Amino acid sequence: MKAVILAGGTGKRFWPLSRASRPKQFLSLEGERSLLQQTADRLLSWLEPRSLWVATTADLAAGVAEQLPMIPPDQILAEPEGRNTAPAIGWSVVSLPAEERDEVVGIFPADHRVADVSEFTRTVRVASELAASERRVMTLGVVPRWAETGYGYLELGEVLDAATGLRRVVRFTEKPEPERAEQFVASGDYYWNPGIFLFPGSTMLAHLERFEPEIAAGLKEIERHPERLSEIYPRLPAISIDYGVMEKLDDLATLPLDCGWSDLGSWAALAEVLPADGDDNARWGDVLALDARRNVLMADEGTVAVLGIDDLVVVRTSDAVLVVPKERSQQVRKIVSRLEETKRDELL
Amino acid sequence: MKAVILAGGTGKRFWPLSRASRPKQFLSLEGERSLLQQTADRLLSWLEPRSLWVATTADLAAGVAEQLPMIPPDQILAEPEGRNTAPAIGWSVVSLPAEERDEVVGIFPADHRVADVSEFTRTVRVASELAASERRVMTLGVVPRWAETGYGYLELGEVLDAATGLRRVVRFTEKPEPERAEQFVASGDYYWNPGIFLFPGSTMLAHLERFEPEIAAGLKEIERHPERLSEIYPRLPAISIDYGVMEKLDDLATLPLDCGWSDLGSWAALAEVLPADGDDNARWGDVLALDARRNVLMADEGTVAVLGIDDLVVVRTSDAVLVVPKERSQQVRKIVSRLEETKRDELL
Repeated sequence: MKAVILAGGTGKRFWPLSRASRPKQFLSLEGERSLLQQTADRLLSWLEPRSLWVATTADLAAGVAEQLPMIPPDQILAEPEGRNTAPAIGWSVVSLPAEERDEVVGIFPADHRVADVSEFTRTVRVASELAASERRVMTLGVVPRWAETGYGYLELGEVLDAATGLRRVVRFTEKPEPERAEQFVASGDYYWNPGIFLFPGSTMLAHLERFEPEIAAGLKEIERHPERLSEIYPRLPAISIDYGVMEKLDDLATLPLDCGWSDLGSWAALAEVLPADGDDNARWGDVLALDARRNVLMADEGTVAVLGIDDLVVVRTSDAVLVVPKERSQQVRKIVSRLEETKRDELL
Repeated sequence: MKAVILAGGTGKRFWPLSRASRPKQFLSLEGERSLLQQTADRLLSWLEPRSLWVATTADLAAGVAEQLPMIPPDQILAEPEGRNTAPAIGWSVVSLPAEERDEVVGIFPADHRVADVSEFTRTVRVASELAASERRVMTLGVVPRWAETGYGYLELGEVLDAATGLRRVVRFTEKPEPERAEQFVASGDYYWNPGIFLFPGSTMLAHLERFEPEIAAGLKEIERHPERLSEIYPRLPAISIDYGVMEKLDDLATLPLDCGWSDLGSWAALAEVLPADGDDNARWGDVLALDARRNVLMADEGTVAVLGIDDLVVVRTSDAVLVVPKERSQQVRKIVSRLEETKRDELL
């Protein structure tokens, strides 16, 4: 199997810790290894470095190379600009040597968390074998642990193989309202969509040809004229692989992934996976908390001191501080938008 | 008149902006001049610099001299260590040339705010004249504007002079409970105690002799042996002038002071006097506030960004950040105490 890590994300949801030049996948939110490094580590436990590719943007390529020195430099694909996942995945496949394109390619977002690495690896390997033997596109689905409204869901159809839990995917559902999320979880017929896909490379190229011919044509042009990448790539339609291909397949299948997965999509989501102190505060760095409960308190530099506050996110970096209620921490992007509007580039 | 500014306070209530080496009186909480400088400015509008003295601690004396270059250096009295206000005031008086000790001495805390300087000056000058002509100790009393529980009160007795509003002070009352504070304000017979006193110097020395003989004896020793200050001063009883002298006088009189006085005793008190934005946030420095109301938001260095929070104090300095509800901002000293206990000297 070849693995492609998608590491082009801009990660505004962890501002002020994440910045344009240091997006979420570069952050070490738990322990010393960054999310990108942990993603690579999980794959390199059973793959050779020469089987691992990283798709990222030109701005971030040097950072990726620095974080992952074991990856051969020509396997770090630097998109001239981010064009969403369909072009990134397509370009990854055509970057493989032509004789290897029938092999299975696995797609892995760079910025997710996995608690149980051996279960993750086991599931990925089963999915990879199924993708190879059945020549089909596979996705992994996370068995939902609560009625999360921040994730997309996969609606499941018939059981294709009871032994592995393989099921058909009927539909992709975007982030649901709370009531609907409850129904999804209660029904047992929905998985969270972690954006992990496995497919024979040539099969994906055929699907792109059919469903996204403009992307497919562009990729062929890039193959023929790699020196014109910076001219051709930015013109590719910016479409996600979910919307561009996956939702249109009538034979997409999924395997259940039960490995303590989280997309760490917000400061509040991070709090759910970090160890807490006796007052249920998630703490990081030099933090002093008196009579304070259920907060996310992070001092990336300097000291954070709080008294008498509950359910807040407080993050201090060398140049900024953020304070937001946990339940609104996904709205941090509004602050980033305001900084963009007011051209506060030094804070972006 | 001679004026003595008391500038020995440690000012922990404005942590993390205030520090041991930069207490509240050194801070420019409004505009460019520090509270100490504003206190001096008010007095120097009608007094010569040679009539102005500053009592402070040895640690802070260099800072005082830097902030007040117009004050002759030997009029900056450096207490070897802080021993509260009775020794500080007594030492100020015996530091005056012997032939000037019959003149009136006015005592002014360094870290208060006055909105109406001309009314302040007018009242001080009337009080000074009364102290001189009647050879008595005068205090100023602030007409209460609300039922503040953070201030001490003066209980008023008979009206001594209807024209000036001069009244006898019956009793000093420490910070009252809310219900009692309401009664005080409703009665019309209580003033806030701003700690501003005026008296002939020799009269105060006589009172110290009577009520605090140990202090008076120590002061005489210092007069005779000024070179032994650092040995004698730290042994003086650490007693406030209110407790040591004022409460014991049966002829203390007070004039009403109606000049927009505030002791700026907490971050919340500061918010009451700073201009507010359209969402009633008091802001200072580089602050970005989205959907946030009635907060005190201060960026002394770097950026403070908040979203969706109400009624909080957020203060960012170069090395720390504080987050506390406005209504608990007086408890910031608990954080300072914890830092002291854990020997975090770099943050004190």
